[in-house]
Amino acid sequence: MTQYSGPDELGPAKTAIMQATYTALSKHGYEKLTIQDIAEEFERSRSLLYYHYDGRDDLLVDFLEYVLHEFLEQLPDGEGSAQKQLETLVETLLPTTLDEGVYQVQLAMFELRVNGPHNEAAREQYLQVDREIKERLKKIFARGIESGEFTHIDPDIEAELFLSILTGTRTRRLTVYKPEESIAELREAINTQIERIKTDSN
Amino acid sequence: MTQYSGPDELGPAKTAIMQATYTALSKHGYEKLTIQDIAEEFERSRSLLYYHYDGRDDLLVDFLEYVLHEFLEQLPDGEGSAQKQLETLVETLLPTTLDEGVYQVQLAMFELRVNGPHNEAAREQYLQVDREIKERLKKIFARGIESGEFTHIDPDIEAELFLSILTGTRTRRLTVYKPEESIAELREAINTQIERIKTDSN
Repeated sequence: MTQYSGPDELGPAKTAIMQATYTALSKHGYEKLTIQDIAEEFERSRSLLYYHYDGRDDLLVDFLEYVLHEFLEQLPDGEGSAQKQLETLVETLLPTTLDEGVYQVQLAMFELRVNGPHNEAAREQYLQVDREIKERLKKIFARGIESGEFTHIDPDIEAELFLSILTGTRTRRLTVYKPEESIAELREAINTQIERIKTDSN
Repeated sequence: MTQYSGPDELGPAKTAIMQATYTALSKHGYEKLTIQDIAEEFERSRSLLYYHYDGRDDLLVDFLEYVLHEFLEQLPDGEGSAQKQLETLVETLLPTTLDEGVYQVQLAMFELRVNGPHNEAAREQYLQVDREIKERLKKIFARGIESGEFTHIDPDIEAELFLSILTGTRTRRLTVYKPEESIAELREAINTQIERIKTDSN
């Protein structure tokens, strides 16, 4: 697994591989996905793909890193209220409804997470995902305390708790809700939590 | 999938099958588990096992129902403080550390949950698990409000939120923590949440 800090380092070929992976996952899901399915979505030389990756799970670990990077990139950082930042993060990770294709990709990534105990590279990568999202949450909470939006909370413990809430909501959404089903009541519970840590003056 | 309301209805043969399943899961995990592995732990007639179940996943859905029932049975109901009941529920679902065998069984059940989108019986059964744990939480919150232990919260929304916290903590424990690793910081975050909904007089 290569470490990279952004799409620039990734190079255009690798970006194209990641986009092909996204398309292949949204069509085939995780269970039956083969590296050939990804190759079929990849318009450039297939040998390039086989040159870069030993197998499907190897590629998917890189894909996870790519998705994490894209996710963090698209979040607002340092502008707007802390509450708004938190709400954007929730909406981005857990939209109330999902298109079938997006659902398939989310489910596939979740299945890769569950593969963690059997695949050290996947486990390490998910540990990294959790760590980075927790750091982002911690920053938001610290900022909200400083600005007086949030009551006196411990940013570290609050980030830990909020990450469990996000992870649990995602687990429930993907395992017992149907793809097209709304998770409005789960989102309402998250909103209640956000309201709870706000100061009265807000 | 048969519906039953307790071990009595299950019958001694079925209880023995469930115990054999537990042992087989703790030894083999989910991925490689076969119905033969379960049969090997089952001291009675193997034909009885094959008579009851079409396949491994069919049996595991019943096992999930059995585990849910055992779990709910062992929780204190209607005695002691609401806070104590809540803490017992958390401790039972999410002990700080896990033995390897217990970890294997929990992981196996989690993998069955993730199989939900591909297996309607598993999805339905997990929906039932979530529903029953949510009901239990709701009862605890309602009781704590009545007794003055908890502040004015909505028991339904609070149960939804708490179920997401529990599910997320379990997902994180099973997918990125190592079996023997302590989840003390995740448990501390849950304790913070319990403290938060308590009235000042407590």
